[in-house]
Amino acid sequence: MQLLPFDLISETLRTVLIKFGFSEQRAELCSRLFAESSRDGVYSHGLNRFPRFVETIQNGIIDVAAHPVLVSSLGALERWDGNSGAGNLNAFASMTRAIELAKTNGIGCVALRNTNHWMRGGSYGWQAADAGMIGICWTNTLPNLPPWGGTKPTIGNNPVVFAVPFEHGHIVLDMAMSQFSFGALESYRKRAEQLPVIGGFDNRGELTTDPRAIEESARPLPIGYWKGSGLSLMLDLVASILSDGLATNQIPQEVVKETRLSQMFIAIKPTAQNKERIISDALQFMKTSGADVRYPGERTLATRHNNLEVGIPVDDSVWEQIVRLAA
Amino acid sequence: MQLLPFDLISETLRTVLIKFGFSEQRAELCSRLFAESSRDGVYSHGLNRFPRFVETIQNGIIDVAAHPVLVSSLGALERWDGNSGAGNLNAFASMTRAIELAKTNGIGCVALRNTNHWMRGGSYGWQAADAGMIGICWTNTLPNLPPWGGTKPTIGNNPVVFAVPFEHGHIVLDMAMSQFSFGALESYRKRAEQLPVIGGFDNRGELTTDPRAIEESARPLPIGYWKGSGLSLMLDLVASILSDGLATNQIPQEVVKETRLSQMFIAIKPTAQNKERIISDALQFMKTSGADVRYPGERTLATRHNNLEVGIPVDDSVWEQIVRLAA
Repeated sequence: MQLLPFDLISETLRTVLIKFGFSEQRAELCSRLFAESSRDGVYSHGLNRFPRFVETIQNGIIDVAAHPVLVSSLGALERWDGNSGAGNLNAFASMTRAIELAKTNGIGCVALRNTNHWMRGGSYGWQAADAGMIGICWTNTLPNLPPWGGTKPTIGNNPVVFAVPFEHGHIVLDMAMSQFSFGALESYRKRAEQLPVIGGFDNRGELTTDPRAIEESARPLPIGYWKGSGLSLMLDLVASILSDGLATNQIPQEVVKETRLSQMFIAIKPTAQNKERIISDALQFMKTSGADVRYPGERTLATRHNNLEVGIPVDDSVWEQIVRLAA
Repeated sequence: MQLLPFDLISETLRTVLIKFGFSEQRAELCSRLFAESSRDGVYSHGLNRFPRFVETIQNGIIDVAAHPVLVSSLGALERWDGNSGAGNLNAFASMTRAIELAKTNGIGCVALRNTNHWMRGGSYGWQAADAGMIGICWTNTLPNLPPWGGTKPTIGNNPVVFAVPFEHGHIVLDMAMSQFSFGALESYRKRAEQLPVIGGFDNRGELTTDPRAIEESARPLPIGYWKGSGLSLMLDLVASILSDGLATNQIPQEVVKETRLSQMFIAIKPTAQNKERIISDALQFMKTSGADVRYPGERTLATRHNNLEVGIPVDDSVWEQIVRLAA
């Protein structure tokens, strides 16, 4: 592990992206989004994900030249086609458009089809909040989660993001419908730790905190058991119906071939005059419940500040791969 | 327990409501919403809840004459004030208005403040879907759930509803942010059953499936532990900021005094031409995971059909109270 400055990371990723055919401007935004994810402590969808992102350019999943195109408009609701472009660029463009629609209509909604993995979903929550908007967005995924009552993965973990702008640092929730991602299970296994709470079934169908047992059964738990299972389905249906795109069941089931995703981007203009006081009072009250209570996004700004100060932690082998790609 | 016909129930409730000062028309809708909840098997927020509803009229929490009033409009987003009217009538009016806005703008959003308990949240999901719209709505509540990391209830269980219209019976999810409601805990305790999964902490701070232990500690679990805890906060902030109403921390903390709630109602026009196929394919695929897989709303239509056929199950003592109120 090494600590690298934000600009070096961003610049190196940009070089790789230009080499792989992105325009200057799009390489700039795409590399910034990756670097910002690592800067904010979301390493799994920042630099650690970049080599796989390049892989999906090489295997033809991502079309580096593709832009999202407007398919139809109903006023404050628009349908766009991502044309198999880079997922984070498509998502950023969609939230940008939802924000524009919200400026005119109070609320704006973009349903996007035929896009690729958006990497860190929280990016588009922070984007909305930075623009002074409430942001809500979600994506479907390949079938990677068994619904409650089943054993085979037939629903997605469909991450959802809620963001509320706040002068002391936005409140941003970025959560998948599985209790632990496969990436999180892997981390616990490598550290030889048990999960802090039950995370899935083992091969005998028993609930367990053993990360390896869940990786082996491929049966992680939805959050709230039947509840997260149901919510995952709803998020998938709404995104695919509004975008007229693919639902989870139609998405290729190999991780490196996951594509043609359907996503939703909603921006809403905050209307309360005393918004800042509503938020600070709510947070203050919430925290009277116990010293360990955190609100979504609370740790992000501290991590961001620290990583910009001392450098962003980067895995040696990941950095080596990236530098090789840039050469 | 007795089995009563829908019309008798609805008519009896209507008589009570008129006696307590509701206009003919509003008594009609209000009694229908209660009767439909029991008809659909949601007894806790149907007839079983009606005596407490009357109590909140008697203690002045509900103003039977109050109508929601438009406060401000930003186009597809409107803010309304519920003026402490009946919660289910206010919610129905708000979803009606969101549907109208969605007809014009593709998406419509009503943020409602100063309202009362909406009873069964799913009602407004079914309402949107019956109108051919995707419906999303949520409410905040009094502080009744400890956030993850804390022991005192400082967040709400903030139920959220997602509804998708479907020709073979709408898909409707109606779920609170707590794994089990206090009503559900009570039912398990009375049947001397353990919960099917961990539902909260006991007084020693250990996770437990014992309903009584959770009632005693008043520490039910949020769905997905830290995830549902975060989502509850986001739902509360969005509803209170957009309605410029009260957040959970400001809502009176006694159950019979819970009032001045903030709620969100979103309706979206489904745009996919092949919506019915998207849904039926997704449901069919989901169910290949196992024989016990159910989708949200799947059991509702069967229950509705059965209850209309043989009569709606009504608790004897509840019915006795209602008949007395009607006399």
